[in-house]
Amino acid sequence: MSDRIEINSAYIEQITALIEANKSAELSVILSDLHIADIAEIIEDLQLDDAHFLFDLIEEEKSAAVLVELEDDTREELLSGLTPKEIAEEVIDNLESDDAADVIGELSEDKKEKVLAHIEDIEHASDISDLLTYPEDTAGGLMAKELIKVNENWNTLQCLKEMRKQAEDVKKVYTIYVVDDNNKLLGSLSLRRLLLAEKGSAIKSIVNTDIVSVKATEDDEDVANILNKYDLIALPVVDDLNRLIGRITFDDVMDVVKEEAEKDYQMASGISEDIESSDSVWELTRARLPWLLIGMIGGLLGAKVIGIFDLENNFELAFFIPLIAAMGGNVGVQSAAIVVQGLANDSLKMENIVQKLIKELGVGLLNGIICSIIILGAAFGLGYSIELSLTVSISLLAVIIFAALFGTFVPLTLERYKIDPALATGPFITTVNDVLGLFIYFMIGQAIL
Amino acid sequence: MSDRIEINSAYIEQITALIEANKSAELSVILSDLHIADIAEIIEDLQLDDAHFLFDLIEEEKSAAVLVELEDDTREELLSGLTPKEIAEEVIDNLESDDAADVIGELSEDKKEKVLAHIEDIEHASDISDLLTYPEDTAGGLMAKELIKVNENWNTLQCLKEMRKQAEDVKKVYTIYVVDDNNKLLGSLSLRRLLLAEKGSAIKSIVNTDIVSVKATEDDEDVANILNKYDLIALPVVDDLNRLIGRITFDDVMDVVKEEAEKDYQMASGISEDIESSDSVWELTRARLPWLLIGMIGGLLGAKVIGIFDLENNFELAFFIPLIAAMGGNVGVQSAAIVVQGLANDSLKMENIVQKLIKELGVGLLNGIICSIIILGAAFGLGYSIELSLTVSISLLAVIIFAALFGTFVPLTLERYKIDPALATGPFITTVNDVLGLFIYFMIGQAIL
Repeated sequence: MSDRIEINSAYIEQITALIEANKSAELSVILSDLHIADIAEIIEDLQLDDAHFLFDLIEEEKSAAVLVELEDDTREELLSGLTPKEIAEEVIDNLESDDAADVIGELSEDKKEKVLAHIEDIEHASDISDLLTYPEDTAGGLMAKELIKVNENWNTLQCLKEMRKQAEDVKKVYTIYVVDDNNKLLGSLSLRRLLLAEKGSAIKSIVNTDIVSVKATEDDEDVANILNKYDLIALPVVDDLNRLIGRITFDDVMDVVKEEAEKDYQMASGISEDIESSDSVWELTRARLPWLLIGMIGGLLGAKVIGIFDLENNFELAFFIPLIAAMGGNVGVQSAAIVVQGLANDSLKMENIVQKLIKELGVGLLNGIICSIIILGAAFGLGYSIELSLTVSISLLAVIIFAALFGTFVPLTLERYKIDPALATGPFITTVNDVLGLFIYFMIGQAIL
Repeated sequence: MSDRIEINSAYIEQITALIEANKSAELSVILSDLHIADIAEIIEDLQLDDAHFLFDLIEEEKSAAVLVELEDDTREELLSGLTPKEIAEEVIDNLESDDAADVIGELSEDKKEKVLAHIEDIEHASDISDLLTYPEDTAGGLMAKELIKVNENWNTLQCLKEMRKQAEDVKKVYTIYVVDDNNKLLGSLSLRRLLLAEKGSAIKSIVNTDIVSVKATEDDEDVANILNKYDLIALPVVDDLNRLIGRITFDDVMDVVKEEAEKDYQMASGISEDIESSDSVWELTRARLPWLLIGMIGGLLGAKVIGIFDLENNFELAFFIPLIAAMGGNVGVQSAAIVVQGLANDSLKMENIVQKLIKELGVGLLNGIICSIIILGAAFGLGYSIELSLTVSISLLAVIIFAALFGTFVPLTLERYKIDPALATGPFITTVNDVLGLFIYFMIGQAIL
C-alpha cells in the first residue's frame, strides 16, 4: 500500500541531488511509486532545468496526468519542450476530453491547430475541439464528453453489456445516464441501484427521474453551488433541447470552489493576481502594487482634505486621524465582506437591496453608538478636552454608519452591473472610507472647536 | 424530471401566504416535489413559526435529511419542539451515522443520553456514540461508519452477494473496501472495476492496493487537502493498527473546504463569528464589535504616539498621517494573506521561515522603493515642502518594509505555536502596523524638519 509521503525541503533536496548526479534509474523507481499529485508537487518545487529532467523520466501514461495537475506556468514551460506531434500523442491521447481541452486551450492558436491535427482518434479530436468552443468559466468549459449512457428501453443485462463497452473509455464512472432514442436526458441510474436490481429488470423500472442537470452556458460558480447544494457527485450537462452532451464531476467543481474562495480572499487582502508564496519576488511585487497605488492616491487625497481645514489652530484634531480613518476602513470592509459572502453562497437575495440597507443601518447604528460612547469616555478619561472627545465621538458614530451603508451598497451595486462584487472589498473600500471619514471628522471638528 | 426552482423573495412570499392560510394539503404537494436542499433553503428564509409549521408537513424520511441541511441555529430551534423519543425515531433512525452524530452532538448532555437510549437499532446507536467521541474537526468527526467492505479471499460473485446485503444500509456507494480477516485495510475496488471484471474473478486479482487512507485523529483540513490533492471521491479512515473504521466522502469535505475558506475570509475582514447576511442585527453587531474595539484601542494608542511629538510646530506632518497608516496596514494585510493562503494550501513549507522573510524583504524593498519615489514626486509636485515630501517618502519606505516583514512573521509564528494564522490578518495586523507606522513617521519627521 502506498503511504502518503511528506514533500518537505529535505525531500526536495534529495531529489535535486539525484537529478544533479544524473541518477535516472533511481529516479524512475521513485517516480513509479509516487502518485501523480505528489509528482506534480515535487516538480513545482524544483528549478526549471531539474523539472524538465524529471518530467522526461515519468512514464508516458502518468506524465499526461501529471501535466494536468501542474500550475499553468509550469505546464506551459514543460510543454514548450515538446513538438505538436509529441503533445498530441504523448499527452492528449492519454487525457480525457476536458483535461485535454484545458491543456490545448492554453497553447497558441497556431500550435493548437497543429496539435489537433495530430490526434489520431478522430472522435477524441472532435470532442476536444467542441469543448474548446465553450468559455472556460461555464459549465461547457468544465464538462467532459466521456460518460456512460444507456437507453431507457434496455434492461439491466443490455445495460451492463453496453457499459462494459463504454467503460473502457471512461476512467471514472459515478453515474449512468438514461436517455431516450433522441439522446434526451431522462434520468440517472446509480451503480448501486444497478447492482441491487433484479437481473434483467427494465431500465425504465429502476431509473431515477429526479435528476438535476445544467445547461452548457451556465456560469461555473452556479454549477459549483448546484453540485454543492444537492451533494451531487456529478452533474449532467444538456443543450437547449435537453440532449445530453457532457458531465461535470465533483473534482472539477472542488477546484472551482477553491479558486473562487482564493480569488475573493486575495481581493479582500489587496492582491490583484492569482499568486502563491512560491512565486518570484517580481510576480509578488506586481500583484501587490496596484492596490498600494490606490492606497497612495487615497493618502494624497486625505492630505488635501486635511489641508482644507485650519489645522494649525486646532492641531489636537490630528491626534485622532488614525482612529477615524481606521474605523471607517474596518467597518466598510466588514460590511462589504458580508455582502460578498452572501452573494457567493447564493444566500443573499438580490431583490431586497433596500431591506438589506435598512438592516445594515441598524447594525451600523448599534456598533456606532457602542463605539462612540466608549470613545467619549476613553478620550475624556485619557485627558483630552471635552470638546475634542465629543468631536471624536460624534464623528465616529457618523463615520461608522456611513461606512456600513457604503460598504453594503457598493458590492450590491457592482453585482447588479455584473461586476465582481469582491472588487469592493479590501483597499478600495478602505481608501474611500478613509478620505470621506476624514472629511466628516474635520467638518464636525470645525463646527465644535 | 424535477427542474431546479429559484427560491427568490416572491417564492418565499407565496409559501408564507399558503402557511398563513393553513393550506396544508397544497403545501404537502409542493414539498413532496422539492429536493431536500431546496426545502432547507426555504425553511431558512421563513419566520420561525412558519418554519415549524412547514417542517411538520414534510414526510418523515425527508424531514431528517432536511434537518441535516439546515444551519445549526435553525436545526436547534426545530429540534426543540421534539421529544427525545421523537428525535430518535423520526430523525436519527433515518440518518447515516455521521449525520446522526452531528445532530445528536449539538444536543445538551442530558438530551443526548435520552435520545441515544431511544434508538432501537443497537448497532446504529453504538456507531453514533462511538463517533461522538471524536472531536468535530478531525477525520473521526467527519467519517461515517456505513461502508461496504469485502474480504480479500472472496471472488466477485461472493462480493456482489455481500454487497447486496450491505448496500441496504449504505445510501451512497462510491468505493468498495477490501480487508483481510482482521479487518485491516488492504485496498479498494471501484464499482467500475467490479463491473468490468470477469464473473467470478478473485478479489485479490482485481483489488487496487494503491490506496490513500487517513487516521481518525487527523485534522479535518488535512483530510480536505488530501482528498482534494488526489481527486478522491472518498477516503477510508483507519485506526492505529490500520483497521478500517469508517469513510469520509467528498461532500463532507466540500463543506470543510467552504467553511475554512469562509472562516479565513471573515477573519481577514474583521468578523469574529460565523455569520450570514440573514442573521439578526444583534448577531451581526456582536460578530463585528470585537475587531472594532481592537481598532479603537489602536486609534487611542495612535493618538498617544502623535501626542509624544511636537505637532503644534510641525502641523503639516499631520497631512500624511492617513497615507502612512493606510499603507502600513495594506502592506501588512497583503503579506499576511499570502502566508495564510500558502499554509492553508499546504504549498508553503514551514521549515524555511528565514528564506521566506528574506524573499519578503525583497518584495517590501521593491514595492517600497517604487512607492516612495512616486510619493516624493507627487507630494513635492502638489506643493508640499521638500522637507515634508522627503520625510513622507523615507517614512513610507521604512513602513512598507517593516509592515511586509511583520505581516509575514506573525502568521508564521502563530502557525508554529498551533494558533490559527488567519488571526494575524485583518484588523490585528492593520492596527499594529498603524501605530508602529505612525511612530516611524514622526521619528523621521522630527529628525528632518
